[in-house]
Amino acid sequence: MKVITKIAEMQKEADQLRIQEKKISLVPTMGYLHEGHLSLVREARARSDVVVMSIFVNPSQFGPSEDFKDYPRDFNHDVELARSAGCDIIFYPDAQEVYPEPYLTYVEVERLTKVLCGVSRPTHFRGVTTIVAKLFNIVKPQLAVFGQKDAQQAIVIKRMVKDLNYDIEIIVAPIIREKDGLAMSSRNTYLTKAQRIQATVLYQSLMVAKKMIDAGERKATIIKKRMRDLIEQQPDAIVDYIEIVDTTTLESQTALNGEVLIALAVKVGKPRLIDNIIVRVLERTINTESLK
Amino acid sequence: MKVITKIAEMQKEADQLRIQEKKISLVPTMGYLHEGHLSLVREARARSDVVVMSIFVNPSQFGPSEDFKDYPRDFNHDVELARSAGCDIIFYPDAQEVYPEPYLTYVEVERLTKVLCGVSRPTHFRGVTTIVAKLFNIVKPQLAVFGQKDAQQAIVIKRMVKDLNYDIEIIVAPIIREKDGLAMSSRNTYLTKAQRIQATVLYQSLMVAKKMIDAGERKATIIKKRMRDLIEQQPDAIVDYIEIVDTTTLESQTALNGEVLIALAVKVGKPRLIDNIIVRVLERTINTESLK
Repeated sequence: MKVITKIAEMQKEADQLRIQEKKISLVPTMGYLHEGHLSLVREARARSDVVVMSIFVNPSQFGPSEDFKDYPRDFNHDVELARSAGCDIIFYPDAQEVYPEPYLTYVEVERLTKVLCGVSRPTHFRGVTTIVAKLFNIVKPQLAVFGQKDAQQAIVIKRMVKDLNYDIEIIVAPIIREKDGLAMSSRNTYLTKAQRIQATVLYQSLMVAKKMIDAGERKATIIKKRMRDLIEQQPDAIVDYIEIVDTTTLESQTALNGEVLIALAVKVGKPRLIDNIIVRVLERTINTESLK
Repeated sequence: MKVITKIAEMQKEADQLRIQEKKISLVPTMGYLHEGHLSLVREARARSDVVVMSIFVNPSQFGPSEDFKDYPRDFNHDVELARSAGCDIIFYPDAQEVYPEPYLTYVEVERLTKVLCGVSRPTHFRGVTTIVAKLFNIVKPQLAVFGQKDAQQAIVIKRMVKDLNYDIEIIVAPIIREKDGLAMSSRNTYLTKAQRIQATVLYQSLMVAKKMIDAGERKATIIKKRMRDLIEQQPDAIVDYIEIVDTTTLESQTALNGEVLIALAVKVGKPRLIDNIIVRVLERTINTESLK
């Protein structure tokens, strides 16, 4: 496995691989790798010749009062984990080279970035789409893998790729969870022992929502209310949002049908955690079937 | 010479050329070609293996009250001219395929797009950077050629390329002028015979400015005033702006030194015409020399 830190070197490497007709895949990360990231590498590994993982804590996607400085970092450990999962190249650039002063250009996706996480993090997605566009131009992949954990990010990136005609296939890989259901996240390290237990309520509330839908409930307000009540039983949990939205447009749904994304963000002590599930709402519910 | 109209076909062609280690150049145009465009093709021809000219009247760079609908078009004639100048591929996409609904993603360069033409055309450069980013992702060139006629555009594109790490060399080719000095432009066809004569005042005013600087004048206000007075002698000429700015930052200059861009936009009847020159301001002027 190779570590490349210079942008020009990465581009030259990509050009050479392209001439050799190699399929390049990109797994963009902010490092502090866990099993979730490694599952993305394995996904990439299975679908391409050369797997490039970028490790870059991207300042432009953090708000001014967010945890950019505190974000956990452990490059040496990341190298070992990436190697073990089958990564070929780690691209590990310097922030100075990625954002030289004066930096003026941003990629913005409208509408989809104004809802859900976009409400409390108004510049977050602009930072994400900008760094991802840059990484696409540096790594020149035919394929890139993102996690379903960041559901809104995956939808925004897909829209950017389509709109800007990036010739890149986007794969979205399933959420990897701890045994008790908590979605893996580098930010889970911020949790105290007590908060770590409380944090399982995010996934529990999603499971409750799914059960309600499976049992015939179609009113989003009722489901969201039940989720909120459950989460707010935890002393350190502060709900940022609980939403049920269309899986493509991210528009809020009131009477559920088709495929819906149930997404939430909850502050549990220091970290703001996110989680989501996609639920297929059946047209005929168990209840109406039984009435026939 | 080949004409390609489909985005996916152009991308496949580019991939094949890249595998063959061909150097691809891109000349983005809105068609209705004149000698100015052809000079860009010749520049590209001399520096690459395969010259791709895009012809696309890009709706997103026109304001709501601008001339998108009226913009002159003559595809068959363009094909002949492009061929004669040594173009290999014309990429001629359909607006529906370039901007499918809903279209949500834009590339924005801050600051540089707020001055000069950006004042009266606030969404123009966003449209330009977005279509150019798209064309880069579709044509996958190693080199792209733009005209100095659109000086601000060239500076904005260079900044976008640098900021977003597009691995593309940007060449800016000199302005091509009619015999009487008028900068070639597809929009010159809008001019009546009388206005066509009046339109030469743009270049004349730039020459006056250069002469003043060469003679030792260093105050931008005095130079701009003289230019305005000259232009406003023409009955159909309405000045949009006359500016003397830094060639990289586009910041307005008051006491001139180093290299400056003198740029102007003037409505002459229907069309709004632009022109510019770059002047190297010598540190020691003729006047101070003579005082020694």
